Amino acid sequence: VGSPKLGRTPPLTEDETLERIRHTLESGTQSVDLRDDAAVVDIPGGGSLVVSVDSVVEGVHVDLSLCSPADVGWKALMGALSDLAAMGARPVGALVALCVAPGLEEGAGEGGVTLGVMEGVAEASRTAGCPVVGGDVSSGGELVVAVTVMGTVDGDLPVMRTGARGGDVVLLTGPCGGSAAGLRQLRAGGGGERAAEAADQSWAYRRPVARLREGTTARLCGVHAMIDVSDGLALDLHRLANASNVGFDLDALPVADGATPDEALGGGEDYELVMVVGPADVDALIGAFTSEGLRPPLRLGVIADDPDHRVLHGEPLGQLGWQHRLG
Amino acid sequence: VGSPKLGRTPPLTEDETLERIRHTLESGTQSVDLRDDAAVVDIPGGGSLVVSVDSVVEGVHVDLSLCSPADVGWKALMGALSDLAAMGARPVGALVALCVAPGLEEGAGEGGVTLGVMEGVAEASRTAGCPVVGGDVSSGGELVVAVTVMGTVDGDLPVMRTGARGGDVVLLTGPCGGSAAGLRQLRAGGGGERAAEAADQSWAYRRPVARLREGTTARLCGVHAMIDVSDGLALDLHRLANASNVGFDLDALPVADGATPDEALGGGEDYELVMVVGPADVDALIGAFTSEGLRPPLRLGVIADDPDHRVLHGEPLGQLGWQHRLG
Repeated sequence: VGSPKLGRTPPLTEDETLERIRHTLESGTQSVDLRDDAAVVDIPGGGSLVVSVDSVVEGVHVDLSLCSPADVGWKALMGALSDLAAMGARPVGALVALCVAPGLEEGAGEGGVTLGVMEGVAEASRTAGCPVVGGDVSSGGELVVAVTVMGTVDGDLPVMRTGARGGDVVLLTGPCGGSAAGLRQLRAGGGGERAAEAADQSWAYRRPVARLREGTTARLCGVHAMIDVSDGLALDLHRLANASNVGFDLDALPVADGATPDEALGGGEDYELVMVVGPADVDALIGAFTSEGLRPPLRLGVIADDPDHRVLHGEPLGQLGWQHRLG
Repeated sequence: VGSPKLGRTPPLTEDETLERIRHTLESGTQSVDLRDDAAVVDIPGGGSLVVSVDSVVEGVHVDLSLCSPADVGWKALMGALSDLAAMGARPVGALVALCVAPGLEEGAGEGGVTLGVMEGVAEASRTAGCPVVGGDVSSGGELVVAVTVMGTVDGDLPVMRTGARGGDVVLLTGPCGGSAAGLRQLRAGGGGERAAEAADQSWAYRRPVARLREGTTARLCGVHAMIDVSDGLALDLHRLANASNVGFDLDALPVADGATPDEALGGGEDYELVMVVGPADVDALIGAFTSEGLRPPLRLGVIADDPDHRVLHGEPLGQLGWQHRLG
């Protein structure tokens, strides 16, 4: 009865797998676009919704010896919300599917891992103003938290990855590499409950924050394209450039306190937003961020017409970053 | 750093865990209701959305030696869609979070488990008329498919579990136990690609169908309450009765061909709908099903005012069914 055939295939990268999945889904009657951070769904009766799903898996994305169940719940919801931020959407609700190993539950005491994770989800939910409207709990062999988020752009169009044009300016909401540095510090036995020193980035790793207000502010300023730094600044820059069929010429790399340039380029989970804006609109964008009390955006460089021209400090920028190898 | 405390707690049932999770989420500023099959979210700009999430975990809900990756994908989407059916909602889109063990991928040949699962998702998506609008793929220790579905009731109110009243009639869209019987037959080495005999229920197990048209037809006929048979007819009847604070007096148990009465009461994953309707509306409901070309509903009995009176054939009905023990 249809059990998997034996054989071997070369492992696919995450992007390759998504391409194959798109093909499978498109071979039917429907047309889908899974290429952006989130999808846009028209709602019968008016309005449209920006939706996305994101998973956190113990042993792959997180390590429960370095962070608490509540950290895992927080990271799962914030990671999903970051996809809404990258579209300029405001969250309206989240659904959480939780899979917990019975063995984990037994060792976890008071309330167990399930309730610990949900406490972190609830904290992130309050911080982001995104109510949890549904959920599902299963037992399983390991901890998996899959979060679906829904958002609105209030009648406006969401910001896609596809709109960057030659001559546009590339801005970033904040320095990168903090999350990777925090993970390194935690692995080395460091890191406190909250950072006592600026270079302690353990909190950036355990409690990252989706840049939701930055995203909506950027949308209202008419940015041409956005992406969030989830898998590493370099990889996510390439993804945006691929989607827009452009290149880039960057002369700045904002590195978080305590992080290395490699961590800033390849670390991921920073959730800063890359914003691409027309040169005439840069000052208005910076002004809007300032008047909203947000950190002023950092200038990375410009978009190039040539899709093969992708440089940082005059050198070609590799596709550093975090792709799952499936298989 | 906040690693789980050591200790032991008595295991919680699924319903008890959900109660604790509700408490965690409600201790904040938000009010949530996770009690029904699906949640209702108001969309800024008009309209409302019925949303639900459901997971399938290898080794817990499915066994890849008894069904194919495509079966798993089909079951995951249909199981989630059944929650929409129970609210009388029409699907508008689904998001799929997939977690696949690299070891599974390696043994699975052409395209691997990931693409196999997504082929089943795509088939179910076409059958149900529900496009897949988003997804996420992770590697992990086991196969987990978490599906979020969104639906609409076209400006109407969704059907809840809470509306049953004494004297109402309890109807069922079809006999139960087929899925459990099919699993038993597959375990015994039986079951074909499609059932050659009526008593071969392997297809009911591998390819269950959400009763979406039945659900919307029932909503348009003004049924008072509905629930889908996902964890077993007896347990789901108790859940509906708990939500409505009523009892029931049933004199019929429709058992699927090849299934036993125990499988009908406790098996689950049948996805038939329990419909509770005012006595004056029974004929209109049956007429609407007939004119829609749907199987005529089966009469189980009546709703009792006394919440402690819950009987089948004059005997108290136990809460048979499938609850995860977490921990």
